[in-house]
Amino acid sequence: MDNGLLVVISGPSGAGKGTICKMLKDKMTDLKVSVSATTRKPREGENEGESYFFISNDEFIKKINDDEFLEYAKVYGNYYGTPKKEVFKQLKAGNDIILEIDIQGALQVKKNYPKGVFIFILPPSLKELQNRIEGRGTDSKEVILKRMKCAYDELDYAFEYDYVVLNDEVEAAVNKIKCIIDAEKNRAIRKKAIINKIREV
Amino acid sequence: MDNGLLVVISGPSGAGKGTICKMLKDKMTDLKVSVSATTRKPREGENEGESYFFISNDEFIKKINDDEFLEYAKVYGNYYGTPKKEVFKQLKAGNDIILEIDIQGALQVKKNYPKGVFIFILPPSLKELQNRIEGRGTDSKEVILKRMKCAYDELDYAFEYDYVVLNDEVEAAVNKIKCIIDAEKNRAIRKKAIINKIREV
Repeated sequence: MDNGLLVVISGPSGAGKGTICKMLKDKMTDLKVSVSATTRKPREGENEGESYFFISNDEFIKKINDDEFLEYAKVYGNYYGTPKKEVFKQLKAGNDIILEIDIQGALQVKKNYPKGVFIFILPPSLKELQNRIEGRGTDSKEVILKRMKCAYDELDYAFEYDYVVLNDEVEAAVNKIKCIIDAEKNRAIRKKAIINKIREV
Repeated sequence: MDNGLLVVISGPSGAGKGTICKMLKDKMTDLKVSVSATTRKPREGENEGESYFFISNDEFIKKINDDEFLEYAKVYGNYYGTPKKEVFKQLKAGNDIILEIDIQGALQVKKNYPKGVFIFILPPSLKELQNRIEGRGTDSKEVILKRMKCAYDELDYAFEYDYVVLNDEVEAAVNKIKCIIDAEKNRAIRKKAIINKIREV
């Protein structure tokens, strides 16, 4: 039994995962963030082992073959992945880790580490999701349409998660997730040590 | 799927269930309390349907045979039981119900309603439990010894519950339980309706 919790924050693009994770980290300063590995070149100001572990394509593929990732994906020609070793080291040390990740990644993590706490962030409505994606101003009409179709289908995956948190008001959503993390720490399966301790009169 | 949660607060005698439930009800005013049926005679100030449903021995036994109790027990010659009908009516109406109950009762409830949220209250230590039971001044040395032996054994049942909450500081324990209830409301299995609503663009 690991001592720390792996908390996976996931959901459709535009649901507000990023903002929620940022606020959650401010609120729960003990939460660790996992550092991903990538084959992308470092950008200005990015540091090895902090922003990412920067590795070569060959190294990445070797790690895939050696089953060293909790999840990985190829995005615009670059690989990104969550190294098991780093995550498991933190969990063993009793640290809680938060992982912000898309739905496909979360499902991979679930396969590799079902003991994680899987939280699906739900946008208040698909209309609102569309507004948010449009508001970013980064996507063409065609891409937005594709994203919306994708989000509609992705809602089905919510039932593969442990929790579903509606992000209609971000502060409330963050508080709900904080509660979920606190509640999960009181799960009976995590309490063996303390029950044995109590027996020592 | 019921809309309300059945929250079962349980644990060894002296763990602090009563105080916790009282504080929890003050904090979460929407929580309903189930009214038990009993064959005991009403005491001064006790009202039918408020304190208890007062029924005859024959009626109680008929209800047992008709499987009308979530749980029941005979204590000092009197029957006490939690009527399914009352509890299920509240849950269907979307009300959350709290049930304070001993371990044998909780295990009966779990068999009859596994969807409940089962919370085991843990005393900080068996020594402290002994102090609390002695502090009540209601039990003989012999009874206390028997209770302590019982509590030691009963700790094994903690793993049949969903959550284990350490009651070393009552305010903290109450807040943990409040968090557990709030978190349980966000369980994916309870979110089907809202996900379908979001699809309506």
